[in-house]
Amino acid sequence: MSRESVLLFGLGGIGGIYACILQLSGKCDVHVVARSNYNAVKEKGFKLISPKFGNHDGLKFAGVWKSTEEAAASGTKFSYVLCANKALLDAKPSLSDHLQPIITPSLTSIVLLQNGVGAEEPLHKSFPETTVISAVVWTGGKPLPTADGVEQFNREGLTIGVDYRKNGDKAEEDATLEKLVGWLKAGKGDCTVTEDIQSERWVKVIWNCCWNSLTTATRLKTGPFFESSSQALPLCYTVMREVEAVAKAKGLKIEDGTVDKLIKQCTDVAYPGLPSSMMADNFAGRPMEVEVILGTPVREGQRLGVPVPTLTAIYTIVKALDYGNQNAEAAKA
Amino acid sequence: MSRESVLLFGLGGIGGIYACILQLSGKCDVHVVARSNYNAVKEKGFKLISPKFGNHDGLKFAGVWKSTEEAAASGTKFSYVLCANKALLDAKPSLSDHLQPIITPSLTSIVLLQNGVGAEEPLHKSFPETTVISAVVWTGGKPLPTADGVEQFNREGLTIGVDYRKNGDKAEEDATLEKLVGWLKAGKGDCTVTEDIQSERWVKVIWNCCWNSLTTATRLKTGPFFESSSQALPLCYTVMREVEAVAKAKGLKIEDGTVDKLIKQCTDVAYPGLPSSMMADNFAGRPMEVEVILGTPVREGQRLGVPVPTLTAIYTIVKALDYGNQNAEAAKA
Repeated sequence: MSRESVLLFGLGGIGGIYACILQLSGKCDVHVVARSNYNAVKEKGFKLISPKFGNHDGLKFAGVWKSTEEAAASGTKFSYVLCANKALLDAKPSLSDHLQPIITPSLTSIVLLQNGVGAEEPLHKSFPETTVISAVVWTGGKPLPTADGVEQFNREGLTIGVDYRKNGDKAEEDATLEKLVGWLKAGKGDCTVTEDIQSERWVKVIWNCCWNSLTTATRLKTGPFFESSSQALPLCYTVMREVEAVAKAKGLKIEDGTVDKLIKQCTDVAYPGLPSSMMADNFAGRPMEVEVILGTPVREGQRLGVPVPTLTAIYTIVKALDYGNQNAEAAKA
Repeated sequence: MSRESVLLFGLGGIGGIYACILQLSGKCDVHVVARSNYNAVKEKGFKLISPKFGNHDGLKFAGVWKSTEEAAASGTKFSYVLCANKALLDAKPSLSDHLQPIITPSLTSIVLLQNGVGAEEPLHKSFPETTVISAVVWTGGKPLPTADGVEQFNREGLTIGVDYRKNGDKAEEDATLEKLVGWLKAGKGDCTVTEDIQSERWVKVIWNCCWNSLTTATRLKTGPFFESSSQALPLCYTVMREVEAVAKAKGLKIEDGTVDKLIKQCTDVAYPGLPSSMMADNFAGRPMEVEVILGTPVREGQRLGVPVPTLTAIYTIVKALDYGNQNAEAAKA
């Protein structure tokens, strides 16, 4: 029997590393959808620079495709589609639109390697028969400036679990996860499996809601932001406590002391502290992950009657910055 | 008896227009402190371009000085010092520091032609014997690009009143105001006298807290901001209602419907709507009037136990933008 196939959708810093891990595992055929860097990857293969996985040059994937349509047209059936593209809930085409051609209902599982919360729900709606695996990514990866590979610049790790579907077969979904985790571990990937991935996701979004949005709105890394006024650090607590309250109202498990721990993880970093991906996107004028990081917590807070005044203000400001970036004429008006 | 003297401190768009109005009144000797444009004004006089007051070239003031110290050293005693410099509560030297050399306690009154709230208090502390007159400025004035005059581009008007001092003689302070108003009216200035200038100031700060801060934080004029998301306009109401609640808790008179009226005044403006002075300062990297527009309302809210979560978040963000503008190395860190 020939090996199973996986598809990496979104070959940026994170997608590139997980394509390499699976490729190095030798357990499956790895296909990639490379949009901006198709030509380089198709012709020269892929490069990995990593203190953990070693340096590799010219990794040859089983398939390099320009789009999911092209991947589907090749006739390959995929066991997993790993989505490491930017999480833009309001993008058109949506992630579901992109995945439609390559989902084989009886076979394919969707794996989210993305920031934020709320991305699973539209996938369950679009693909009610499909297992959705969701991972919180703790990996530092960035594309090489030459666009033909990635560099791992910080730890690698996933907290991963099934976002169980209603009326699904739990044992079957768990087995699906287990197989993927086995492949990742064979490639030396670091996986922590959890039965409660949503709690993990929300802990990470407590972090992201605060640092991503405030570095974006203030255009400062965390260190100078803390120095900018006596209100700066208290505002971070306020933001995190609002998101924590929303998560708890959803029935998720957030351990006592989580906010203090997350604040300390950031204040412990030497000056100038941390930038964020959203801040970088804003400076570069790229679409920002506003909805999965801020929009879902705001909407869930409003739905559940949890007061989120600070989150709402910051969401509205970041949303407007995003709008200005995507609408040059409005920004110049 | 020779005519009385007034000094204009801050010869920008607003200060320039009121220097001209008093000069054209013929009722007093007008001195000016011109900092950035001293040489031009000293040599060629001052230019006014105005649909209301006419165009004037080479207006010659009684005195043109580089600083308040120089004005004081001339031996002139001033009946009024009109302050039209930027309102920066945390600037060093402070406004009190600047005024110290030219205040003659038995003679001089201080007149504030500035944005925001909270600027009177430090003046009362520094000059307890001095009448402080406070005005809400509705005038559109901007310096000419040639830096030797001003252009009036919108209506001209002041709402003006005494910020009565404790244990002062009300009749005497009222007479002081009346004399100045007489001169301004003689120069065709439009003055509405009020006994409750703080209520007027706070109504204007309800306006400024919203539009100045949100145009600054989002880098959009009001029109594109309204289009940026469905949360944008509700956020404006929230900001204004928080400031309104603080003003009411201070015992000030804010008429019913004030917030609706202020919102409508802005939404009625044709696309792209309004920019703000704070937004312009931010783009130019100049110090912003954060404390008199946002800081005082936040602190008064906290002091009085009025919830101001939205204002606090926006204040902290704008404060950080101001910090980044004033600390280039921190912003680049």
